[in-house]
Amino acid sequence: MLQTITWTGSAARLLDQTRLPTETLYVDITDERQMWDAISRLVIRGAPAIGVAAAFGGYLGIANTPGDTALVRRRLNEVCDYLATSRPTAVNLFWAIERVRRVGLSEALTHPDAIRKAVLGEAQAMLAADTEICRAIGHHGLKLLLDTLPNATQPIGLLTHCNAGGLATVQYGTALAPVYCGAEQGVKFHVYADETRPLLQGARITAFELQANGIPVTVICDNMAASVMSQGKVSAVIVGTDRVAANGDVANKIGTLGVAILARHFGIPFYVAAPLSSIDRNIPTGGQIPIEQRNGTEISHGFGRQTVADGTAIYNPAFDVTPADLVSALITEVGVLKPPFADALAALP
Amino acid sequence: MLQTITWTGSAARLLDQTRLPTETLYVDITDERQMWDAISRLVIRGAPAIGVAAAFGGYLGIANTPGDTALVRRRLNEVCDYLATSRPTAVNLFWAIERVRRVGLSEALTHPDAIRKAVLGEAQAMLAADTEICRAIGHHGLKLLLDTLPNATQPIGLLTHCNAGGLATVQYGTALAPVYCGAEQGVKFHVYADETRPLLQGARITAFELQANGIPVTVICDNMAASVMSQGKVSAVIVGTDRVAANGDVANKIGTLGVAILARHFGIPFYVAAPLSSIDRNIPTGGQIPIEQRNGTEISHGFGRQTVADGTAIYNPAFDVTPADLVSALITEVGVLKPPFADALAALP
Repeated sequence: MLQTITWTGSAARLLDQTRLPTETLYVDITDERQMWDAISRLVIRGAPAIGVAAAFGGYLGIANTPGDTALVRRRLNEVCDYLATSRPTAVNLFWAIERVRRVGLSEALTHPDAIRKAVLGEAQAMLAADTEICRAIGHHGLKLLLDTLPNATQPIGLLTHCNAGGLATVQYGTALAPVYCGAEQGVKFHVYADETRPLLQGARITAFELQANGIPVTVICDNMAASVMSQGKVSAVIVGTDRVAANGDVANKIGTLGVAILARHFGIPFYVAAPLSSIDRNIPTGGQIPIEQRNGTEISHGFGRQTVADGTAIYNPAFDVTPADLVSALITEVGVLKPPFADALAALP
Repeated sequence: MLQTITWTGSAARLLDQTRLPTETLYVDITDERQMWDAISRLVIRGAPAIGVAAAFGGYLGIANTPGDTALVRRRLNEVCDYLATSRPTAVNLFWAIERVRRVGLSEALTHPDAIRKAVLGEAQAMLAADTEICRAIGHHGLKLLLDTLPNATQPIGLLTHCNAGGLATVQYGTALAPVYCGAEQGVKFHVYADETRPLLQGARITAFELQANGIPVTVICDNMAASVMSQGKVSAVIVGTDRVAANGDVANKIGTLGVAILARHFGIPFYVAAPLSSIDRNIPTGGQIPIEQRNGTEISHGFGRQTVADGTAIYNPAFDVTPADLVSALITEVGVLKPPFADALAALP
């Protein structure tokens, strides 16, 4: 599997996902401004991956700061605040930043090098933990699929939107983890990958990584999902999330809401793979989740030719919110949550 | 307004819609092979427009055929059969071809020039009638919108998919006709135009023509329709059609089914503008409508950069079928049809 993010000893090495699928390029990020830019431009994307990346960004921001403990502490705060402005919707970003901030600002650390060491250690711990979390989601998600689709003929048809695979995490993925876990156990899947306009993460990244890992995949335009479902080709929908509110509302890549409504219409279960780091119990409903608005040129000039006339209004929200009542289950690393989600989420550790 | 198709006296002049919105180029079609290619490549598209274009193609195929009446009659048959293979889904194509075939093969015509004159006359009659048909659809559709949305605040938010505007017809359009008709009467609309992957007729053509005609329009990706509807911005959906079956099932551009399901979910009326030439009472349900499958490169290499890795499976149906029970009304040039559509369609002249 391609590595989304690795630590070289002095830099965070990121696979440049804006270049996929035609180029496999890595960039070494050596300061917090480069990391901010990489997150903002979606060089690295996927809620779990940008959390880990931001943690390394926190370290890089203080790695070479001269001065005493107080200065490094102040600098860490500034860097954390700055990195938190790179994207607004995925809560993993803020979760990761607050983790390195808390560790780095610990009163027990009285030397600048101790702060640096602690922050880097925390980032490395997150990097290591992410794969284990994804494997646990894969295990629980596979069991859920096999339990709830006992009559599905193999290959089991799944539909996913955007990329919540290995390239959205350190490796293995969230929504795609059950597929990889199944493949290890001989369970066969066929994945329909929504191309996911405007930035085509489904076509460029999901299809790319599934194909690279030997999983049968068919790319469709987003507007073909209803047609594929109407033909009985989809037994379940499984997607990732950028933030789950306390009531179970799910923010995810724009278009997820539509897929959830289609799944409901066709009686297809709609599952959301959600590591605990994506659950934001401080926010009561999806209505309070900030939705990133991106530049209309992503739509009008996205992939070569201009496709919208100059001066035309364009609406380009990067995310939407799927109400909890359209979600069949949340798959976390500690198990599967079923409705009512407010109770299940409140009961989490 | 731009002219989709005009007759120069010796050629059918088509606006090359593959070049919009950045270039406004016309091509003069002078034989049936060029017309077949223009229809197949979507130089001209939109069910009503390709009907008229095919009629001129029929004339061009016999315009310079040497030989006697029998030879010209045989040639007309061959040309009509050939043009009918250019695209499979829009019934207007076959309707128009059969009209010119029937006229040209009339036993009353005993001279090759009389056949040519009759076929050209029929094509020109269709060209002229199309605008009147569109204006009648606009009149009925506007009344329907105002009657069924009495409480909508202006501008009335409409969502449309693909292009069923002036550039899908000779002029004025079907789904967009009520908007143009309303504009003439001071009724204000705001249209959300699905960009309509893979060939982006919504972004490239619908937005272009609305903007050119002073109608406020916002381009969205197809997967943003649910988000826009959830925000209460859409009072009605209105689309065109390539074929309506006898039971009221509607074939239209891929993605229409999904939009219809979303509209039902959000309690938004879903209207289909359907000239009588798009209604195929010979076909019992949408299940019998042939659905054109197009090349996957339209998705993987559509607009410049390659966006799907080589060797990846791609599914690219050009149309889908919306079941009649998701359709709120059919707007024809002879009036608005309400469910049950089987009865209303059977009662048409």
